[in-house]
Amino acid sequence: MSANRQTESAFPRIRIVMVETSHPGNIGAAARAMKNMELDALYLVNPVLFPHREAVSRSSGAEDLLERAVLCESLPEALEGCSLVFGASARSLRAIPWPQLDARGCARTAAERGAGGEVAVLFGREDSGLSNEELELCNYLLHIPTNPDYSSLNVAAAIQVVAYELYMARIGQWQGTPSNKADAPATAEEVEGFFHHLERTLVAIDFLDPDNPRQLMRRLRRLFNRAGLEKVEVNILRGILTSVGKLLK
Amino acid sequence: MSANRQTESAFPRIRIVMVETSHPGNIGAAARAMKNMELDALYLVNPVLFPHREAVSRSSGAEDLLERAVLCESLPEALEGCSLVFGASARSLRAIPWPQLDARGCARTAAERGAGGEVAVLFGREDSGLSNEELELCNYLLHIPTNPDYSSLNVAAAIQVVAYELYMARIGQWQGTPSNKADAPATAEEVEGFFHHLERTLVAIDFLDPDNPRQLMRRLRRLFNRAGLEKVEVNILRGILTSVGKLLK
Repeated sequence: MSANRQTESAFPRIRIVMVETSHPGNIGAAARAMKNMELDALYLVNPVLFPHREAVSRSSGAEDLLERAVLCESLPEALEGCSLVFGASARSLRAIPWPQLDARGCARTAAERGAGGEVAVLFGREDSGLSNEELELCNYLLHIPTNPDYSSLNVAAAIQVVAYELYMARIGQWQGTPSNKADAPATAEEVEGFFHHLERTLVAIDFLDPDNPRQLMRRLRRLFNRAGLEKVEVNILRGILTSVGKLLK
Repeated sequence: MSANRQTESAFPRIRIVMVETSHPGNIGAAARAMKNMELDALYLVNPVLFPHREAVSRSSGAEDLLERAVLCESLPEALEGCSLVFGASARSLRAIPWPQLDARGCARTAAERGAGGEVAVLFGREDSGLSNEELELCNYLLHIPTNPDYSSLNVAAAIQVVAYELYMARIGQWQGTPSNKADAPATAEEVEGFFHHLERTLVAIDFLDPDNPRQLMRRLRRLFNRAGLEKVEVNILRGILTSVGKLLK
């Protein structure tokens, strides 16, 4: 394995984010799956029962990940510092299509576009997954191909598959070329800051009617998330918005 | 997916064989993992507790696989009719080296060498795996790459990874593409029209100095070209620029 590790320093730090998980056993099984694949950053957004003995029992020696798990009260809090966000979704068709990758494509994209930074992969509730609003915080939807007649992956099983693909990418099965991007990716907060600034500006110039927003912000989020914004680009775009704001005074 | 299914008829019939499994929950979770990946032939060699309510509970809708599971009193009985046998092993080094594949190599080899026939993949006991005698019944050892410092995959998690790789091989290695299906991409002229409109607007609002443009338009072109604009998006962006233009009058 060591011979394949020359690219490791550039491999992003991966954060697994579980949103409002109901069953503590699934959190334990996820920790075990992660540790087997050399992932160690587990973020829990409002877990229903945690800490819990069932989580410890299912973690089977990965209690250290549970002890270090970061408890968050909101999803944006869990995404702080991340430059690239994937959201697992069992739904592959959506009203407004969002860029979508399978687990292998996710691992490749994380390696290419997330290199050197922090990458989050989100997994939703056992019964209802991630909400549309939560998916809109993602650069990509992550869809694990499954039987179209029985698509019912357990959340820990989904984490196992994704963690496995990330590990395969990391130890050198990944065939792409490393990204030599000179410019740092924007963090999730920087991107959110831009979207809020954009929305305020569109309202101020009467392009966006806050009483009838239709799909406008969702469309614009999708466009910019597809590109994956860099810090410099966020600064330029916010500079343009500031100049527009001055016209209004 | 359907377009990738031309190889399906030749894809071998896969049999998942669990040997002396202790925990019925693992059998249930394995059935669920299998059904998600369109596998349906589960063979159980001397399970410690089966049938069992914990197996049904963890199978989560895959009870049909449990009901049709084939109970065997010996491993050779479970392998009857198979032309190719893989045995999962957490041990990657052995006194007598046996041909060894990772999960992806197993799926590829099953598709290539098992085509049209029956292929078995064996998974051993939770605590001790498969014995040397059992592994010697296999054509290949199957090793799932894991953290060398913590190699402790749950047996159902291992089945999940292998079933996933078999499914990926079956559906044709689909890697995922950005999902722009519903919306038509903008033409090159439409994109150029947007860039010119953007440049005129940035000059008009005093954000861009035409005598000292630096890298600004190049940066913005790079950003939007990376996203790949759709017709609808060009219309939205030009609509925003038109609204800004009205402020200037």
